[in-house]
Amino acid sequence: MISSIKRFFIGHPLKSTELGEQKLNKKKALAILSSDALSSVAYGPEQILIVLVTIGAAAFWYSIPIAIGVLILLAALILSYQQIIYAYPHGGGAYVVSKNNLGINPGLIAGGSLLVDYILTVAVSVSAGTDALTSAFPILRAHTVAIAILFVLFITVLNLRGIRESASILAYPVYLFVVAIFILIGVGLYNIVTGQVPAELHTPIGAPVAGISLFLLLRAFASGSSALTGVEAISNAIPNFKDPAPNNAAKTLMAMGILLALLFSGIVFLAYYYGISPRGDVTVVSQIAEKTFGRNFMYYFIQGTTALILTLAANTGYSAFPLLAVNLANDKFIPRMFTIRGDRLGYSNGIMALGFASIVLIIAFKGQTGHLIPLYAVGVFIPFTLSQTGMMVKWMREKPQGWLSKFIINTTGALISFIVMSIFFLTKFTQVWPVLIFLPLIILTFHRIHKHYLAVADQLRVSPSEPTMPIEGNVIIIPVAGITRVVENSLNYAKSLSAKNIIAVYVSFDREDEKRFDEKWANWNTGIRLVTLLSLHRSLILPLTKFIDTIEHKANESNHQVTVLIPEFIPKKGWHNILHNQSSLLIRAYLLYRRNVVITTVPYHLKK
Amino acid sequence: MISSIKRFFIGHPLKSTELGEQKLNKKKALAILSSDALSSVAYGPEQILIVLVTIGAAAFWYSIPIAIGVLILLAALILSYQQIIYAYPHGGGAYVVSKNNLGINPGLIAGGSLLVDYILTVAVSVSAGTDALTSAFPILRAHTVAIAILFVLFITVLNLRGIRESASILAYPVYLFVVAIFILIGVGLYNIVTGQVPAELHTPIGAPVAGISLFLLLRAFASGSSALTGVEAISNAIPNFKDPAPNNAAKTLMAMGILLALLFSGIVFLAYYYGISPRGDVTVVSQIAEKTFGRNFMYYFIQGTTALILTLAANTGYSAFPLLAVNLANDKFIPRMFTIRGDRLGYSNGIMALGFASIVLIIAFKGQTGHLIPLYAVGVFIPFTLSQTGMMVKWMREKPQGWLSKFIINTTGALISFIVMSIFFLTKFTQVWPVLIFLPLIILTFHRIHKHYLAVADQLRVSPSEPTMPIEGNVIIIPVAGITRVVENSLNYAKSLSAKNIIAVYVSFDREDEKRFDEKWANWNTGIRLVTLLSLHRSLILPLTKFIDTIEHKANESNHQVTVLIPEFIPKKGWHNILHNQSSLLIRAYLLYRRNVVITTVPYHLKK
Repeated sequence: MISSIKRFFIGHPLKSTELGEQKLNKKKALAILSSDALSSVAYGPEQILIVLVTIGAAAFWYSIPIAIGVLILLAALILSYQQIIYAYPHGGGAYVVSKNNLGINPGLIAGGSLLVDYILTVAVSVSAGTDALTSAFPILRAHTVAIAILFVLFITVLNLRGIRESASILAYPVYLFVVAIFILIGVGLYNIVTGQVPAELHTPIGAPVAGISLFLLLRAFASGSSALTGVEAISNAIPNFKDPAPNNAAKTLMAMGILLALLFSGIVFLAYYYGISPRGDVTVVSQIAEKTFGRNFMYYFIQGTTALILTLAANTGYSAFPLLAVNLANDKFIPRMFTIRGDRLGYSNGIMALGFASIVLIIAFKGQTGHLIPLYAVGVFIPFTLSQTGMMVKWMREKPQGWLSKFIINTTGALISFIVMSIFFLTKFTQVWPVLIFLPLIILTFHRIHKHYLAVADQLRVSPSEPTMPIEGNVIIIPVAGITRVVENSLNYAKSLSAKNIIAVYVSFDREDEKRFDEKWANWNTGIRLVTLLSLHRSLILPLTKFIDTIEHKANESNHQVTVLIPEFIPKKGWHNILHNQSSLLIRAYLLYRRNVVITTVPYHLKK
Repeated sequence: MISSIKRFFIGHPLKSTELGEQKLNKKKALAILSSDALSSVAYGPEQILIVLVTIGAAAFWYSIPIAIGVLILLAALILSYQQIIYAYPHGGGAYVVSKNNLGINPGLIAGGSLLVDYILTVAVSVSAGTDALTSAFPILRAHTVAIAILFVLFITVLNLRGIRESASILAYPVYLFVVAIFILIGVGLYNIVTGQVPAELHTPIGAPVAGISLFLLLRAFASGSSALTGVEAISNAIPNFKDPAPNNAAKTLMAMGILLALLFSGIVFLAYYYGISPRGDVTVVSQIAEKTFGRNFMYYFIQGTTALILTLAANTGYSAFPLLAVNLANDKFIPRMFTIRGDRLGYSNGIMALGFASIVLIIAFKGQTGHLIPLYAVGVFIPFTLSQTGMMVKWMREKPQGWLSKFIINTTGALISFIVMSIFFLTKFTQVWPVLIFLPLIILTFHRIHKHYLAVADQLRVSPSEPTMPIEGNVIIIPVAGITRVVENSLNYAKSLSAKNIIAVYVSFDREDEKRFDEKWANWNTGIRLVTLLSLHRSLILPLTKFIDTIEHKANESNHQVTVLIPEFIPKKGWHNILHNQSSLLIRAYLLYRRNVVITTVPYHLKK
């Protein structure tokens, strides 16, 4: 039944050979991997204005030069990540670049922050989408957390069904959003050009502003740069592209960069020209849309697609997280299970882990994940800085033809990213300090896991120089609880093995019972020796373990192996299990983990 | 570590031979087994007045004849249960009496209602105690449920430590309560005799009252009879008494009856004479205490001990429930685990089940268990009626010397109990109807469990006429995941058994890997045949099971036994387990429950 429920949600299993068919063409990849970056347009410009408004509306013209700064950073990031894609065509992005060029720990810092960041992406964007929904339908407000969890489950299941299928479903809203914002920008610009917007709404560029400071401008710049989160996703997800993957990925990245630049600068310009001031209750995009169209169909279309893409931004995390996890798992820094492909060829453990972790975050913050945004932005600029520094080192070391221009691009990117990161730490320390706690903890965990895997591999390696000693003979111990068919069955099995020594053991809780059982056993005439152990404290495990230890000690001397053979009857129905004591399970678990004995379970299946 | 925490709370394990030392003398038994009955004095008289006040204060004099009726019922119950104690000295009370004299189903009805009733006792009395505490300290009101759960855990742990120890601790509050109420009654009577209480506070007995009806009087009588819950506890708990157990139990029961009669009639009389009217916010006992002493030390002493005994009434359930469960489990109507004595010789599974179930009730009703009281009273009078009817049948059948007087006692008791039960159904049907749902369900469950145990016993019985077939030979299948020391170890073990056929099986997820592994295996030169299975759907279990089925089919024909030998490495630390896939666990669980193969786990313990 469980398996048919799984079929219903996830679909029938795909063959490994069908992997190629699951890959994405450029159009679908753009939709699925850029929803995070493109959705930033909905809040990035606003972040700049929120900082500038502290000085006054006169300072709004600074949003133009700041936006140019953001565009330069964007260009540097896009060009840099294009170079990363060609240099590391198997994906892995910031983690692989930093690890290969700067060393293990910078790599782990980049990988660790991105892992956490994708979890934050999902939690934050799903919460944002839920807020949009509950704003429209206030009756749902009491169920915010439940709705957000349902969204996460929906996206998780969609991704478990396979990336191609989720791309097909998710492409529409992303392109609708892009079209909607383009129409908004187009109509807005037309209105400006045709002189329908009065010029006195905005202060001219270059007008002097009292109280402006470099610190404030930098802060506005950093806030605006949060629109660039999600840019790195494509470089992590190269393996999801159709062949030639690096080529397609690089083109998709460029397309995303151009779209993002156009949308971002369009919105910033309209906001500036319309003289729009950020308000707590209505977003900047919503104000622009209202000024441009009034409250007609287009206004609601823009609002609707915005809410949708904010939710779907979560999906970028689902594409990038599992592939980053595969890279980390292949390098043995996180559990190996992240490298296993699920029924639909996605890395289902990564998908489920991401869904689970973001649900935990949503529950922990009761759906109010808004104040996690600065944390999330820092978590992006740390790997940005590291990966571009890594590329700098790479060019310096390898010095391929034309390396200088590449080096300059990466140096610019690294510098700006570093500045943005530093500004975040300087101006929003109260919100971003947790990074300084959890990042070291994550790195430590990575190292401990790594050490364990190496130790295990070392211990498991077969070496022809020191082969294991052959076993000379076997001693079989059978704990018995009565004279039943189950025991009879086990005795028969034990006799069929060439054991030197078969001993049945009975633990009795009082002397009378002990005597009685001894007699019954003798009458049964099995030919197998019985040892009875008296346990006045009514413990089964203690006397049994003690006895097994004694036998094992003796057996070891002559290179004999001790096997504990556990008779177990298997009830016909699951609920029957609670009606029988689970001693066999207990004995097995206890011995397996603590003693060097082979554990054999001889089942006796009941028929009714 | 878990075991030392257990030691701290429960104490060191006792030997079975120390059982005698855990038994109770009469004084302790009275304290521990009568707290439920005696605590009823705190609310029983009030229940009568609550019904009478619907007519008016003039009707209060009826409380005297009604109390006499309750005392007659009490006398009948005490005498009847004394006879039960001598007739069934191994305990079991209503369940055993009804089962032996009326048949299985009446026995199960009595046993089932008592089981549920003890759970209700615990939930209701702990909630009452918590209410008393939060009334005194309103700041705790927000944590009612948590406090009630803590109380339950405290009493549970106390009982797990052993009945003697809990009796020693719980005896003080019970005797303090008895002393406190006796002082109250004594001083009250002294005041009346010395004429300090004006006689006009009450209407004289026999004064005509308008609107009184037989129905109302019966209802008041039934309500007052709820003071008799807990009377049966001693008859269930005879095995806890020091020898001669039946004698001591009968004497304790009589002492409890006399105490209960004195306290009950004293409170009813004072309430009548003082003309006390039931009020929502102040209990009748509290009003009497205030009128007698004013708000001085004695008043708070009485209030405090009352709150304490209301909580401790729960303990009666802890003494009686596990012993009743033992009786039901011995008759195979509930899981056999209830017959196992814990470390401290108490029936710890019963104690924990009771604690768990009452915590569930407290959480489900958010600590507001007050409206469960009628349910609880009905649950007592059903077994009262059944057990006394059972005794009637017994005397009729056996006709021992002087049986007629015994028969008359039981007949009186049965009749009054039946009337009280009927009145509950007639007058409080909206509150007691759940009994009609859950009691049949419980009985049904009892029967299903019983049927299962009989079927199992039947299937497990060794019959010399049809001995099991000896096993002719063994086929060993070893699923391998690589060429490691773990596998090497398992191969060695397999070779040491006299198997006809050893087959290693490797499941590969793609053709290349399959080929590669085949070659590696051949080079390893183990002398053991390898079968590789290609699983393009990346499932381990499916191809493996299919293969095992084929082998098993062939093996069965020649009476060979198939053993699946699972190589398993055991990490040094528990947390390491999540770093390795648990395929071996999965394979084992799947095969054990679904296939008739022996499962052998060959552990390889890692050293670091």
